Amino acid sequence: MSARIDALADTAAGATPTEGARPRIGVIGAGAIGGFYGAMLARAGFDVHFLYRSEYETVRAEGLLLKSATYGDQHLKPIQAYRDAADMPPCDWVLVAAKTTANASLAPAIRQVVAPGGRVLLLQNGLGVEDAMRPMLPDSVHLLGGLCIVSVHRHSPGVIEHHAYGGVNLGYHSGPARGAAGARTIVEEAAALFRAAGLDAPVMDDLAQARWQKLVMNVPFNGLSVLIDSGTQALMTQPSTRTLVRELMEEVAAGAAACGHALPEGYIDVAWAATNGKPDYMPSMLLDYREQRPLELEAIYGAPLAAAAAAGVSLPKIGMLYQSLCFLDERNRG
Amino acid sequence: MSARIDALADTAAGATPTEGARPRIGVIGAGAIGGFYGAMLARAGFDVHFLYRSEYETVRAEGLLLKSATYGDQHLKPIQAYRDAADMPPCDWVLVAAKTTANASLAPAIRQVVAPGGRVLLLQNGLGVEDAMRPMLPDSVHLLGGLCIVSVHRHSPGVIEHHAYGGVNLGYHSGPARGAAGARTIVEEAAALFRAAGLDAPVMDDLAQARWQKLVMNVPFNGLSVLIDSGTQALMTQPSTRTLVRELMEEVAAGAAACGHALPEGYIDVAWAATNGKPDYMPSMLLDYREQRPLELEAIYGAPLAAAAAAGVSLPKIGMLYQSLCFLDERNRG
Repeated sequence: MSARIDALADTAAGATPTEGARPRIGVIGAGAIGGFYGAMLARAGFDVHFLYRSEYETVRAEGLLLKSATYGDQHLKPIQAYRDAADMPPCDWVLVAAKTTANASLAPAIRQVVAPGGRVLLLQNGLGVEDAMRPMLPDSVHLLGGLCIVSVHRHSPGVIEHHAYGGVNLGYHSGPARGAAGARTIVEEAAALFRAAGLDAPVMDDLAQARWQKLVMNVPFNGLSVLIDSGTQALMTQPSTRTLVRELMEEVAAGAAACGHALPEGYIDVAWAATNGKPDYMPSMLLDYREQRPLELEAIYGAPLAAAAAAGVSLPKIGMLYQSLCFLDERNRG
Repeated sequence: MSARIDALADTAAGATPTEGARPRIGVIGAGAIGGFYGAMLARAGFDVHFLYRSEYETVRAEGLLLKSATYGDQHLKPIQAYRDAADMPPCDWVLVAAKTTANASLAPAIRQVVAPGGRVLLLQNGLGVEDAMRPMLPDSVHLLGGLCIVSVHRHSPGVIEHHAYGGVNLGYHSGPARGAAGARTIVEEAAALFRAAGLDAPVMDDLAQARWQKLVMNVPFNGLSVLIDSGTQALMTQPSTRTLVRELMEEVAAGAAACGHALPEGYIDVAWAATNGKPDYMPSMLLDYREQRPLELEAIYGAPLAAAAAAGVSLPKIGMLYQSLCFLDERNRG
């Protein structure tokens, strides 16, 4: 593939996705998530290229600093940063880590950067994000989804703080892979990249189910944190919101089941235990709201509600959360 | 009745509730609502006595000023104001116009002030407020409910601004009245008082239904205004909250029907039209919230939800509103 003509010869340990050549990785939307995974992959020896917008000058001058108690600090300087996708080399893997609200506007850059036959991996939350992206990509491109289990925070331009976790659940969405086995091979390639960087990377056979599963956490905490301006701990302590969190989780499970992606038995108890009695946490949607950035309402609320409604199931409390958040988001952005 | 021994002989026009004597009226909880009705009744010639707490000194010195474009300004000075219920004369009518959250603490004062065989009229919103008050009153006392259709605002201590409307829908709850006809006679007495003051006073045969009916407005606007910090106009303009308001109204109608108090055909359309395209309005619950006063959550949300649940009907969006408001109210009051 032309994309790999100028790739270096040495292969990152454990990562031999294609023909022994070191894959080139592009990161589009290099905020907290993109910066974290990009820096981790660069440290593992991959050839990583970052597309930046507003932070370009800072990152070009200062590099990218990842601060992590778990993985150690890493200062990526110089960094292969670009302001314009047209200047980037063709990449075997394109990691899209922007907010889903930016996907449509980023599609031209993604098409520009992905090599023919390359792979696009959406490191995003919500339902239906690949469905929306698919028509904007060439048929020759593999599209995958990744659900990040990570707590990271963009401290300032070019500075990312990693707090906890780091894994990615990976699944195949669509593209030229031949059957389930072919798809699995591509997902295993993706998993090998992250594992080479020392990160957990479980392979999911049912990406849609994995996305519903992640919604069990995203739906209650992201939205309620904005609606009542609170971190997770207070939500899980006050009896009425504690009950509400549980009910919202149950509605997610009902939606998943109605859409043919029933959650594993006991999954809600697992999600509950992951937050119950745990330290306070500010969900990303609350941070977005406070920064007056657009909220990911369609991916996290609109799409699941529409999918459940199409399957004949109403999710009233999620619906009310969505309705209230639409109001708040609109007012918040003037 | 001993309560009327010292009542003046002249009877207010159109108001002859009992034996030709001018009834004595006590007002407990003289905020905006109590101040408005008390002043209107005093202007109509009734013998009105007001129980005040924090505003006592101001009102005693400055009187009660009611400002109204509709009814003209009125300065009630001197005013028959009291700091202690024990100093008040026994009253034929006791108007309770405090927030429902104060009812239990006001019950001793109400018992103190109401004359034997007298009438207590709760000028309050919500469901079940008479049920909660009834056990705190002597059996000899008639208990009535009044639903105020009025826009008034307490500008400052002793100063009430009236903006619009003024009617009261009245219904009998419980007491020594003999049958429906006896109850109706008592309610007509109440209506005569308000009509003598120039105010609409429809008599409701089914107080519970009237209370459900009022909830059609109170449930969506009071709660949502607090939850998303907004007046009514924005709620009715943004498409998603506009839909949500309608759905909350429909849940109220479903609750009413389940409890055997089905709303009149087309009632929701009437309520909708009363707000749709109308000037912005700050519901009283939003004002209470901003002043860090306790919210009337039990009367407006908890009691209707419990009644509907007992009738086997779930009202999920009202439930979520209640849950969120419980959190906000608790945090708001520290």
